[in-house]
Amino acid sequence: MEDIILLSHGSGGEQTRKLIEEEILKYLGNEILEELLDSGIFNIEGRLAFTTDSFVISPIFFNGGDIGKLSIYGTINDLSVMGARPLYLSVGFIIEEGLTLNEFRRILQSMSFASRECGVKVITGDTKVVERGKGDKIFVNTSGIGVIERDLDWRGRKIEEGDLIIINGGIGEHGLSLMLQRLGVKVGEEVKSDLAPLNSLTLPLLSLCHGIKFMRDPTRGGVAGVLNEIARKYNVEIEIEEEKIPIKDWVKYASEVLGIDPLYSANEGKVVIIVERGEADKVMEFLSKHELGKEGRIIGEVKGKGNRVYLKTRIGTKRILDPLKKDLLPRIC
Amino acid sequence: MEDIILLSHGSGGEQTRKLIEEEILKYLGNEILEELLDSGIFNIEGRLAFTTDSFVISPIFFNGGDIGKLSIYGTINDLSVMGARPLYLSVGFIIEEGLTLNEFRRILQSMSFASRECGVKVITGDTKVVERGKGDKIFVNTSGIGVIERDLDWRGRKIEEGDLIIINGGIGEHGLSLMLQRLGVKVGEEVKSDLAPLNSLTLPLLSLCHGIKFMRDPTRGGVAGVLNEIARKYNVEIEIEEEKIPIKDWVKYASEVLGIDPLYSANEGKVVIIVERGEADKVMEFLSKHELGKEGRIIGEVKGKGNRVYLKTRIGTKRILDPLKKDLLPRIC
Repeated sequence: MEDIILLSHGSGGEQTRKLIEEEILKYLGNEILEELLDSGIFNIEGRLAFTTDSFVISPIFFNGGDIGKLSIYGTINDLSVMGARPLYLSVGFIIEEGLTLNEFRRILQSMSFASRECGVKVITGDTKVVERGKGDKIFVNTSGIGVIERDLDWRGRKIEEGDLIIINGGIGEHGLSLMLQRLGVKVGEEVKSDLAPLNSLTLPLLSLCHGIKFMRDPTRGGVAGVLNEIARKYNVEIEIEEEKIPIKDWVKYASEVLGIDPLYSANEGKVVIIVERGEADKVMEFLSKHELGKEGRIIGEVKGKGNRVYLKTRIGTKRILDPLKKDLLPRIC
Repeated sequence: MEDIILLSHGSGGEQTRKLIEEEILKYLGNEILEELLDSGIFNIEGRLAFTTDSFVISPIFFNGGDIGKLSIYGTINDLSVMGARPLYLSVGFIIEEGLTLNEFRRILQSMSFASRECGVKVITGDTKVVERGKGDKIFVNTSGIGVIERDLDWRGRKIEEGDLIIINGGIGEHGLSLMLQRLGVKVGEEVKSDLAPLNSLTLPLLSLCHGIKFMRDPTRGGVAGVLNEIARKYNVEIEIEEEKIPIKDWVKYASEVLGIDPLYSANEGKVVIIVERGEADKVMEFLSKHELGKEGRIIGEVKGKGNRVYLKTRIGTKRILDPLKKDLLPRIC
C-alpha cells in the first residue's frame, strides 16, 4: 500500500515531528528553519514588503507547474511587483487525509527548486491535516518578506495622461490551460501555464527606469481586472488596443471555443507596467532582451481623468471593459 | 434567504472587491491594508521574528472563543514566546462556499477585537473560496512579524541541570473543552478554552528575568509534547511532578471520563518556561500578579543530560512521559 498522510501527521506528536524532520526539512531546510522554533528569526533594516497568498488550485499538478511551484512563485511575484527583493517565506500546509506521501514529496521538491531559483529561504512553517472530504488534497499558504531599495519603490509616483501601459508577454495562458486540462481536452505541449518568477525581470527594470509608476501581476481577474483596479483607484481612464495585445494562437482558439475572454483569464508570469511615455522605449528594450519579456508590447495608454477601462477593438469600435461581474473559473490559484 | 459566500467572491472580480472593501476592510482596515497593494509595506530595523499558522479548528465557534480570535492570538503567542513584540499580521482566508456572511462577520469582528487588543495591524491579506465539500466552513492562515529587543532573546542561553520548569496556569483546557463540545456534552460556563494572548505576560517577564532560557506555548501535543521537544533538542532529562501541575477540576473529571491525558491536551493561553533556579522566585512573583499567571506553578526541573521526560506520580512512582504516538484529537487549532 502506498504511504499516505494521516490525521495523526497533524497531531503535534511523533508523526508530525517525523513528517517535518524527514520530509519538509529534507527539501526546504536551512539554518533558520532547522532551529524549529515558534518563529524564524533574522536581522534586517530598511523598508519591508509583507505579503500572503493561499493556493487552492485544482488540479494540484497542471501543465506548466504544480501547487508547490505556484505557491513560491506567486508570493515571489507579489513582492517583486512592489519592487521588493524577496528574502524569507513562510509555508503553511493544509493537507486532506489521504494525500500520498509521494504527491507531497513532489510538491516539496518543486518548492525546494523554486525557492533556490529565486534565492529565498523558507524560515517558518506549519502543517495541519483535515479529514477526507473536509479539504481537497492540499492547500498551501505562503507569506513572504522582501526588502525594497528606496529608489525601486514606485508608490507615490503619479499616474498621468499619456502614460503607457505595457505587458511582458501573451495573456490568459494560466487560466485557459487549466480550464482545458480540467475539461480533459487533449492538448499539445505548448498549451501550458505561463507560471514563472518575475523577480529577475521587475527588479532590474525598476532600477533602470524610475519612470515606472505601477506594476502588478494580473492573476485572478486577468489583465482586465488589474486595469479596472488601477482606473478606479487612481481615477484615470485607460484605453487598450485589442490588436496590440500579445496572445498565443492556442489561447485565442481556446477562448473562442470556451467563450472565455482571455483579458479576464489568469496569468502567473505576467506583469502589467505603467510607465511615463518618455521611458517606454527603455522598458521595451529591456524586455526584448529578457527571457520573460521577449513578447512584451505596449498595449495602451492612460487617457486622463476617469474610472473606466476601454478596449479599442480590431474593427475600430470602442467598448467598456467592465470589471469582472461573475465567476470565470474557480480555484485557478 | 441569508447571504452566503459564493465561489464568485473568490474570483478576483467585482464580488471579491466588494467582500474586501465592505467587509474585511470594515473590520480590519488600517492605513497600510487600505492601500490594497500586493504587499503591505513598512519601515523597520532590528532583529525580527516571522511565524505562520493555519487554523482549521472545528467547530469554528467554541466555548471560550472562535477561529477569528484563535488565529490572531495563536500567532501573537508564537511571536511572544520568542520574546518578539508582535507588530504586523497577514491573514489568508480559505472559505467553503456556503459560509454565511453573518458567520464571516462574526469572525472578522473577533479578529478586529483581538488585533486591537494586542496592538497589531493586519497589513496584507488574501481570500479564496472553494466549492462545498472541498473545505470546512473556513480555514484561516495568519503569519506574523515581531521585533525582538536584544535582551529579550533567550536563544543561546544554555539549559542546565537544576533549571526549573514553570507553567502559568491549569493545563489541557483548550483541547478538553473542545472535545466535550464536539461530543455534545452539556457543560457549565467554566468549561471553556483557555484561549488568551500571551504578549502582555511574556514580554515584561523576559525583560525582568534574563535567566529565562526557554519559552513555548504548549498547543498541539500539550505540555508533554513541548517537554519532549525540549528534552530531545537540548539533550536534557526533565522530571515533572504530577501533584504540582495546576489542573482545574473539570479538566480532571473530563480527562478521566474521556480517557485523555491532560498533559497531552492542547492549551491556547499557556506558556512553559524554563528558568535558572536563582530567578524562579522572581518569575513566580511576577506570575502571581498577572491575570494569566495567578495559577502558575513550578512543575518540575531539569535533571541533567538525557533525552526523556519523566513524571513523578502522586504515589511516588516515576514513569516515562512519551512523546505523543497517536492522534489525540484532530483539528483542535
